[in-house]
Amino acid sequence: MKFIYTFLLCSLLVSTAKADNGYRLWLRYDHIDNATLARQYRQQLASVTYETGNSPIIQAAQKELRNALQGLLNYNPAFVNAPGKGSTLIFVKNGSKQLSPALNKLINNTGNEGYVIKTISLNNAPCLVVGAANDKGILYGTFHLLRLLQTHQSLTNINIVESPKTQVRILNHWDNLDRTVERGYAGFSIWNWHKLPGYIDPRYIDYARANASIGVNGAVINNVNANSLILTADYLRKTAALAGVFRRYGIKLYLSAKFSAPIEIGGLKTADPLDPAVKQWWQQKADEIYRYIPDFGGFLVKANSEGQPGPQNYGRTHADGANMLADVLKPHGGIVMWRAFVYDDKTPDDRAKQAYNEFKPLDGKFRSNVIIQVKNGAIDFQPREPFHPLFGAMKKTQIMPEFQITQEYLGFSTHLVYLATLFKECFDANTYSEGRGSTVAKIISSPVNNSLTGIAGVANIGTDINWCGHPFAQANWYAFGRLAWNPDQSAAAIAQDWLKMTFSNQADFVKPITSMMLSSRETTVNYMTPLGLHHIMGTHAHYGPAPWVNNLSRADWNPVYYHKADSAGIGFDRTATGSNAVAQYYPPLRDSLNKVETTPEKYLLWFHHVGWNSRLKNGETLWNELVKHYYKGAADVAGMQKTWASVKGKVDSTRYHEVEQLLAIQAGEAAWWRNACVLYFQTFSKLPLPAGYTKPDHDLQYYKDLKFHYLP
Amino acid sequence: MKFIYTFLLCSLLVSTAKADNGYRLWLRYDHIDNATLARQYRQQLASVTYETGNSPIIQAAQKELRNALQGLLNYNPAFVNAPGKGSTLIFVKNGSKQLSPALNKLINNTGNEGYVIKTISLNNAPCLVVGAANDKGILYGTFHLLRLLQTHQSLTNINIVESPKTQVRILNHWDNLDRTVERGYAGFSIWNWHKLPGYIDPRYIDYARANASIGVNGAVINNVNANSLILTADYLRKTAALAGVFRRYGIKLYLSAKFSAPIEIGGLKTADPLDPAVKQWWQQKADEIYRYIPDFGGFLVKANSEGQPGPQNYGRTHADGANMLADVLKPHGGIVMWRAFVYDDKTPDDRAKQAYNEFKPLDGKFRSNVIIQVKNGAIDFQPREPFHPLFGAMKKTQIMPEFQITQEYLGFSTHLVYLATLFKECFDANTYSEGRGSTVAKIISSPVNNSLTGIAGVANIGTDINWCGHPFAQANWYAFGRLAWNPDQSAAAIAQDWLKMTFSNQADFVKPITSMMLSSRETTVNYMTPLGLHHIMGTHAHYGPAPWVNNLSRADWNPVYYHKADSAGIGFDRTATGSNAVAQYYPPLRDSLNKVETTPEKYLLWFHHVGWNSRLKNGETLWNELVKHYYKGAADVAGMQKTWASVKGKVDSTRYHEVEQLLAIQAGEAAWWRNACVLYFQTFSKLPLPAGYTKPDHDLQYYKDLKFHYLP
Repeated sequence: MKFIYTFLLCSLLVSTAKADNGYRLWLRYDHIDNATLARQYRQQLASVTYETGNSPIIQAAQKELRNALQGLLNYNPAFVNAPGKGSTLIFVKNGSKQLSPALNKLINNTGNEGYVIKTISLNNAPCLVVGAANDKGILYGTFHLLRLLQTHQSLTNINIVESPKTQVRILNHWDNLDRTVERGYAGFSIWNWHKLPGYIDPRYIDYARANASIGVNGAVINNVNANSLILTADYLRKTAALAGVFRRYGIKLYLSAKFSAPIEIGGLKTADPLDPAVKQWWQQKADEIYRYIPDFGGFLVKANSEGQPGPQNYGRTHADGANMLADVLKPHGGIVMWRAFVYDDKTPDDRAKQAYNEFKPLDGKFRSNVIIQVKNGAIDFQPREPFHPLFGAMKKTQIMPEFQITQEYLGFSTHLVYLATLFKECFDANTYSEGRGSTVAKIISSPVNNSLTGIAGVANIGTDINWCGHPFAQANWYAFGRLAWNPDQSAAAIAQDWLKMTFSNQADFVKPITSMMLSSRETTVNYMTPLGLHHIMGTHAHYGPAPWVNNLSRADWNPVYYHKADSAGIGFDRTATGSNAVAQYYPPLRDSLNKVETTPEKYLLWFHHVGWNSRLKNGETLWNELVKHYYKGAADVAGMQKTWASVKGKVDSTRYHEVEQLLAIQAGEAAWWRNACVLYFQTFSKLPLPAGYTKPDHDLQYYKDLKFHYLP
Repeated sequence: MKFIYTFLLCSLLVSTAKADNGYRLWLRYDHIDNATLARQYRQQLASVTYETGNSPIIQAAQKELRNALQGLLNYNPAFVNAPGKGSTLIFVKNGSKQLSPALNKLINNTGNEGYVIKTISLNNAPCLVVGAANDKGILYGTFHLLRLLQTHQSLTNINIVESPKTQVRILNHWDNLDRTVERGYAGFSIWNWHKLPGYIDPRYIDYARANASIGVNGAVINNVNANSLILTADYLRKTAALAGVFRRYGIKLYLSAKFSAPIEIGGLKTADPLDPAVKQWWQQKADEIYRYIPDFGGFLVKANSEGQPGPQNYGRTHADGANMLADVLKPHGGIVMWRAFVYDDKTPDDRAKQAYNEFKPLDGKFRSNVIIQVKNGAIDFQPREPFHPLFGAMKKTQIMPEFQITQEYLGFSTHLVYLATLFKECFDANTYSEGRGSTVAKIISSPVNNSLTGIAGVANIGTDINWCGHPFAQANWYAFGRLAWNPDQSAAAIAQDWLKMTFSNQADFVKPITSMMLSSRETTVNYMTPLGLHHIMGTHAHYGPAPWVNNLSRADWNPVYYHKADSAGIGFDRTATGSNAVAQYYPPLRDSLNKVETTPEKYLLWFHHVGWNSRLKNGETLWNELVKHYYKGAADVAGMQKTWASVKGKVDSTRYHEVEQLLAIQAGEAAWWRNACVLYFQTFSKLPLPAGYTKPDHDLQYYKDLKFHYLP
């Protein structure tokens, strides 16, 4: 008898049919299953009128609306060609005869990018008005309206007035011309230079759509460790093709400029910013770029940092360099974003102090179209850092923060870490530069000398089909855009929007997963760098723990430089008796950070060298607390796995299984971090693990011996 | 008055909604619009029974069937758990009581991979039987059945008996561990080594599905220019995870082995194949590999070629090297594919003769589990080459051909070139090794000493969303698989199947586009290397024309070595008065190639140095004919553009526009090839362009001066 097999796997197979590869990001526009809601939306959006003109941006907005309604509601609304004919949705640029003077005024005051979405009564019937003073406001208003539908919100009695808190909301792509991506964990660069300009990958359009949907309005498309070739005519032609795609979605293209380009591609003998020939070369280059890209945004520059050339090579200052470039861009309306992430050839007493020391004296010396781009913390995108002391320190200079969306130090694309809480920690930090309320968010959204305000994020985007490698890494791109638009929004609200748009509106999915996202970054801090530890990861690739490394050529490249563990204790003394980095902060913060007792425990070892047996606020010793944080971090990843398992069936099986596998990797790596760090620090503390904590499986040497090849 | 904009672009927008990014390849399973046909299929597939057991391969086949029917017919057939209950589709492994003895016998004789699809009468009703002796036959039969549906063929009175003509149908991935792909034009390697083994990219599964659907049953996943690290435990663990995916789809995993691995990762001082320690190391390595991958396929080896180490480094022969590896794999059932693409350090009188000269004397010296892998031609995957003289020359040695699916010399992934006609030209060539009928196809599908037969193709697969970079490059992957299964199939029939499955069944689409595909390779030969020219492309990247290059360190790396243009004429004299490469062919072919008059014009300059004013068969001079071929090639690309424009609206707008853009690039590059080559060869012929041919826009120096950076 043959065995007769019947299908037991039907449900699995059927759910597989709804597989989602993540390509559509948060713009999925899948049909709304709630029939009542869908019917209501169809009624409310039954008839659409545009009083907007038909610029390319407006066309993009219209196309998005139509595709979205087709997907969400399986519906093509009537598009009527005159006002007053019973329209239920009206898009208005710069006012309409149909609207009240007050509403027209509100619309006309939305500025360059803001918008109004408001329910009014028109011909005795409710009508939704999306109004803006400019095209980009219509585009952003369209995406906001669609978000309301995607998150199943009521369209009744809407009254939304929005405008961005910062003007330059920009992604920095660390993409090289060979398509490798520095610190990229989602494949390779999406810019296919070989096929440009002739071939416009549809992906470029979807990239622009995604950015526009969250208000990102700029992109630096090449690595800050720049290649001068990007400024040659061959590449400018290719770049111009990208700019043409971006422009339809309100996105300006910027380039990272290598300071030595006049030598490398210009044939000059110097790149001295005060040399007339150098300035002339840049002037001509700027003019050439604007011939290719009339709305070119400007340059991002990494100079005199990590081996990059800069004005200091010629005895000039950062201001000399930045201003020279600013001057050539000025007539065209371009800006210079000059990075403050610098360190010179000498090993400093405290690398955390360098940017402040180099830039603070230059305050007031920069042109108004120069923005100093400052990393959120003073070291380098660590899982947790105190805010950078330059925020608030340069009162006559525009500062923009640089966040890292790509997870160089936060588990690459295999760890689920929702970064909005990290961004918020920086935005909400009080610098005390003008007393209470001088938060980073306030400082960076306040224009200095009519400069543009801005926020930069180092992109986590690559050729992976789901763009970001990890389905949840998409949330960090999303949250960056939303917070750059308005840093006052909550990380929770943004997570909820993203989850609903990306996965499901089901409350029993959104609630537990929002909670998982909100605690995920603290979890990572716990298993990597609790209590203010930092920069103890593997050399070069920054993969995994390596607190023991002490043999790199520069002291401040070694983890031991940062944790300073010894038989007495652990931590970097940055108080007045140490490096005195605390002096770079304003009082009273300076004073509270100067003392162990008033330093928040999350920053404890950042600012203090603390004895192993010192008691923390809860009465526990530092050693025990350190161990407990590491174990809690790893244990909490197991909790995330459980939470995820609880939503099985509530999301498509493809992404469910992807996240399930990635959480398993994360759990393994969290244990690796915990074990390696605890065992290593134990060689100094000589103390046992607290009761109840299981000893690591392997000995320290095992972790030290781990080798990896071809890390991304 | 505000301008009121109404939607004029409705049709554009709606068709955009049906965008197809090409990811699904030829397995799209979109709904069959023909309602009559769909209804008939639903009836014919109303009730399905499996008498097959439920091995993983059977489960994969069932899952494919269910997903496909869901997509094609929006239909879940009833799956009944016992025979004789009115099933209309029965899958049978190894016979069934329900079937006639004759049919059972037929099924049981299908071998390891064959299958039967046959309509029978069961309980007085028609019933379709998919029968096979083994699981893989059921899998392949399932895909064949689905192909009938996808191409809208009748399911009435089916009578199909299939088995493959060769046993190892294998893709060679020239993928490096850093995810770059040598000669890859579709992005980067799809193998994400960092995330393996923990993360199984859904793409791996879809890769396996696509291969299974065309009968590909093996994959060498790393570059023939191999890195020894692939053989370390870390990578074997990752590799085993891939093998686990492949196994469910009947695909064996193979590795490229670096001959010096015993030194590099084994710590030995030598890799001499006759050294007992070396043999022991390989023995242990093979045992280790099979612990990770019980069905590991074996090694592909590039040895003593282009700088790769090999047995000749130790004074041993290719046979010594191959046999040592074959012996350690033999107990596990593994094979060695040993490449014949070799050249030593000395510049030869004719590189085309090398492989034959090195391997012919070794005939009969190889173990039965060694297959010599021979490129289709004796130089290197040129747009056109005569078949390799080793085919038919080694009567006691198994030979497998190696084709290049990736378009290293055929326009990368921007030129539409359907390669099935190239493959067929080789398969159908008569070697005369056993007189008439000794075609390459016959030779390579005839086992020697019970060896496995096989066909290899260098993959054109990468991280691009559409896998192959050019929508039409997918056809070359597809055609490779179909022809490896059965080289006797026609290029036209395969193109039609592919077009129907990939784009549309509409006759007014399939007919003109099939025709365009079938002539596309000849077109490319015409604008690149007509009349037997070869190897005149750019150095290193092989991008664009560079017939003038004469300064590379080895003579046989220079284009001038191959075309030998001079004031008298052009072409490589390989006759008895020249390099006598013709002597490597059997008579009477040898004799006909030895004479200009009996040499096919398409190979003319491959075998002969011909005077510029020599008359060809049509009475035209060589110079004029050469120019006409170049101009015809470029003009025919314009014809392809017109043909493509004629099917606008018959395919989704995304892929329509992609192909439109790529054809425009191809047209530009075809003109570039034409202009550069004609101008360059004119410096020797000193003859004018024939009447009516427009002079190139630029002078020769312009083409010589073109520079490219970061070519793929």
